[in-house]
Amino acid sequence: MSITITAFERSPDGGKGLARDTRVRWALEEAGQPYAVRLLSFGAMKEAAHLALNPFGQIPTYEEDGLALFETGAIVFHIAQRFAGLLPVDAHARARAITWMFAALNTVEPPILDLFTARILEGDKPWAAERLPLVGDRVRSRLRQLSARLGDADWLDGAFSAGDLMMVSVLLRARSSGILAEFPNLAAYVARGEARPAYRRAFAAQLAVNTAPPPG
Amino acid sequence: MSITITAFERSPDGGKGLARDTRVRWALEEAGQPYAVRLLSFGAMKEAAHLALNPFGQIPTYEEDGLALFETGAIVFHIAQRFAGLLPVDAHARARAITWMFAALNTVEPPILDLFTARILEGDKPWAAERLPLVGDRVRSRLRQLSARLGDADWLDGAFSAGDLMMVSVLLRARSSGILAEFPNLAAYVARGEARPAYRRAFAAQLAVNTAPPPG
Repeated sequence: MSITITAFERSPDGGKGLARDTRVRWALEEAGQPYAVRLLSFGAMKEAAHLALNPFGQIPTYEEDGLALFETGAIVFHIAQRFAGLLPVDAHARARAITWMFAALNTVEPPILDLFTARILEGDKPWAAERLPLVGDRVRSRLRQLSARLGDADWLDGAFSAGDLMMVSVLLRARSSGILAEFPNLAAYVARGEARPAYRRAFAAQLAVNTAPPPG
Repeated sequence: MSITITAFERSPDGGKGLARDTRVRWALEEAGQPYAVRLLSFGAMKEAAHLALNPFGQIPTYEEDGLALFETGAIVFHIAQRFAGLLPVDAHARARAITWMFAALNTVEPPILDLFTARILEGDKPWAAERLPLVGDRVRSRLRQLSARLGDADWLDGAFSAGDLMMVSVLLRARSSGILAEFPNLAAYVARGEARPAYRRAFAAQLAVNTAPPPG
């Protein structure tokens, strides 16, 4: 079996590991699976060949023999189902770990993406300065609840799982705003994720792409 | 086995079916599973007893013998795994149906929620009128891509699945803005979802709660 994913030829974050291929690379490293990467320019992502793989014209995608998937959450979930190491075997613990994957993507990530929109995409708009604190407070409200649930545990529900992989990846996107640091147990949780050998290999692999000499 | 979910004692939408318990009711109806509902006031949702079930203080939650879950996507997925009727048996088709669940929740829903924020939560802000078209165009951009993928098919990938259940539910939240109607094949897709007997039973059940005389 061979696995191929897609990633940015040049990530908009310059290699900080925030592009979503890092989440898939991390999952594959936790599962001990080798993979190939096809790099795409922004132009190529919007062309028919890639839209056939991902109708929203984004990276990452995932191909293995006879199967093509898009959407980071679905790809990480597929890897976690297919290979050992990312989901508990016990059915109830497994359902709870999957719950944290969805919570990361649908409850915690949206306000964090909104913060990115407010700071960067709408950073030059006349309302930017007045709106930013509102958006920041929505992120704080979610992180306060998550921080209360995590408490002083290492991971969200027992051993490290795909739920933690996704939550750490989502929280990383809140770090540059300074808001993550307001919740020391969450900042420590993210640091524990980053310290995992699989994460470090995934991070290094995406960094190598983004610091390579320009193609051609 | 007995299933209990939670829902708003009074939904903020007054019974339009947009609260997330409708998605879980719909899944349970498709699976032919009876369920009980525990209704919660806004106050009770933020109390310790409910926060133990859902750390973000939201509805719905899901309890069956010995298992407690939160997060709509995870609950619908659990129902779809546990009972027949919502996911294909073929492994590849199943992975693709799950992909659409994640795509609905993490790619299509966030800009639609943003539209809600811009229209309602920030509707009285000085930037509201100028910002709204920007946010609307982000929704249009996603729906244009989804519309191109759906084409004239009935459902997103073969037979109706939990992926369609989630996508229809998410798109319903864009209808009142008028943007859904700009994409006739998506509007027809949503109408096909609403016409399913299971959806109609779910909708009627949440409407009955929201049109009942006030408690006490």
